[in-house]
Amino acid sequence: MLEDEVIDRIRRTFRQRGKSARGGKLNLGIGDDAALLAASPGCETILTCDWFLEGTHFLRKQHPADVVGWKCLARAASDIAAMGGFPRCFLVGLALPPSCAGRWCEDFLSGLRRAARRLGLELAGGDTTRDTRILVSITVIGEVPQGRAVLRSGARAGDLIWVSGRLGEAQLGMELLLRGGVRGRETNRLLRKHLYPEPRIELGRWLASRRLATAMIDVSDGLSTDLGHICKASGLGARIYSARLPVPRVPSGRRFDPLRAALDGGDDYELLFTVPRRLAHRVPQEYGGVALTRIGEMTRSKGLLLVEHGNRARPIIPRGWDPFRR
Amino acid sequence: MLEDEVIDRIRRTFRQRGKSARGGKLNLGIGDDAALLAASPGCETILTCDWFLEGTHFLRKQHPADVVGWKCLARAASDIAAMGGFPRCFLVGLALPPSCAGRWCEDFLSGLRRAARRLGLELAGGDTTRDTRILVSITVIGEVPQGRAVLRSGARAGDLIWVSGRLGEAQLGMELLLRGGVRGRETNRLLRKHLYPEPRIELGRWLASRRLATAMIDVSDGLSTDLGHICKASGLGARIYSARLPVPRVPSGRRFDPLRAALDGGDDYELLFTVPRRLAHRVPQEYGGVALTRIGEMTRSKGLLLVEHGNRARPIIPRGWDPFRR
Repeated sequence: MLEDEVIDRIRRTFRQRGKSARGGKLNLGIGDDAALLAASPGCETILTCDWFLEGTHFLRKQHPADVVGWKCLARAASDIAAMGGFPRCFLVGLALPPSCAGRWCEDFLSGLRRAARRLGLELAGGDTTRDTRILVSITVIGEVPQGRAVLRSGARAGDLIWVSGRLGEAQLGMELLLRGGVRGRETNRLLRKHLYPEPRIELGRWLASRRLATAMIDVSDGLSTDLGHICKASGLGARIYSARLPVPRVPSGRRFDPLRAALDGGDDYELLFTVPRRLAHRVPQEYGGVALTRIGEMTRSKGLLLVEHGNRARPIIPRGWDPFRR
Repeated sequence: MLEDEVIDRIRRTFRQRGKSARGGKLNLGIGDDAALLAASPGCETILTCDWFLEGTHFLRKQHPADVVGWKCLARAASDIAAMGGFPRCFLVGLALPPSCAGRWCEDFLSGLRRAARRLGLELAGGDTTRDTRILVSITVIGEVPQGRAVLRSGARAGDLIWVSGRLGEAQLGMELLLRGGVRGRETNRLLRKHLYPEPRIELGRWLASRRLATAMIDVSDGLSTDLGHICKASGLGARIYSARLPVPRVPSGRRFDPLRAALDGGDDYELLFTVPRRLAHRVPQEYGGVALTRIGEMTRSKGLLLVEHGNRARPIIPRGWDPFRR
């Protein structure tokens, strides 16, 4: 039976690991009605799930199966990073056309396994079925020491706003991939950001454990949308400075608006967080090789403002990725 | 933004409950990057996920939105019942055509909420996106006292095999729905079994807490397939008696093979479990109004046998529902 074949393939790919990388262990993995996890003492369980659908989140021709495997898990795990937690295990819902049950599935699982190892995630279970398209649904389970999770709602007026890495690079990488034509190290780096994003797990944990971040979110829909989420949840506004934004370096000869991409480009999976002004000196310029940039501050007055050269301020309209709007 | 509209609708529908019905509480529900759950002391966490896809698991015309909402959650929670656990919370991945974001979504959420209340499940989070079809992915998180989960692998040779309720009724209900024509109380009951299945949570917990069941599974793919899973996991075979099988009562004038439906029909979400012979007297004839029927025994020799009238035994071929085979 084809479903059993796919499940056996999954089982073979993920067989190696008896114990997860951190803390407690998975008491029972795939193969029964459900998985069993022993929660770590003194920790809360973090739960999140994410779609990764052919035609919406990836294209079968442009995105190799291995990329689909890596990216579906990396972006779901990014929500664990945004809470300041560490990943424990994941479930994968996988719907495949029969033509993808062989080689495509093999490559997909290879990318999925690489991401799982990199992120310290153990496969706990899943569900497989056939479909005309490739559909992936990922649930990631993480943990965070009791009371240490960083929510979107904790920012205070006057808190300073930081972001990791560069914003808009994934957008630029996607456009380079879809338009094609340019090669070289910089291009490869940008493609890599689009194809194999790296959730900022260690940074998130560090910020949470030091109680530095008052609010945090991962930039998945674009700064203009995700900063809006922190503002709404915290009942505040924000002001950011265009000159400070870590925009992408655009390869010469490319028509691409780096500021627009930094504001509205999605898929970067960088961390956006707020820190009380009095703790600002404790935030380093980089963490684990990833730059940390102060881009603005939270304000009592609602609304998002972009302060441009010459100190003119204009409202930021959330134009981040909304699947229902297109 | 349409995605926010759908999320707001979900939030409004599920707002009421601050605490889950049992044990610990959900420390943080929908609205942040992820949810936070406090695990109950002395318990293991149960994790399971299930697809519910338009065209594969339901049909938009034949199955009202409210049915889709109920059934997607009930069948996922059935895996918790099959472990002997109790449900805690769930995540819902929901992909919708824009035309379904209004009334359809409202009715879907109403069915989902009714099932959640009935099952003691709190909404923890999810992901929404647009698609050309309705796609649902459900993750259910449950708990079970440490070491008390009932696996598929625990059956011993000689253990007796029980099943709850009647097998094949959901199949009959589906055929009545698709072919139409007959009405009446019995038909409604059969339709109900297909449309609003009831996972046997309380029975599963009782069997686990009394250490009666050595192996257990829920009948989702059909007896011939699911008993095969217990046999494979336990390294055994099984013999069941056709005269003992609780087959559906077929409305008069219907062409329907009740034995075939009991063997191969899926979607019943009854519990199939094994009990050591010396404990057989402790299994009641019914539990919570649901009949419990002894249908056979586990055997040292591999393979599934059906003993028919006159004691002729023939092998049972697993013909349960396999999405990849059709």
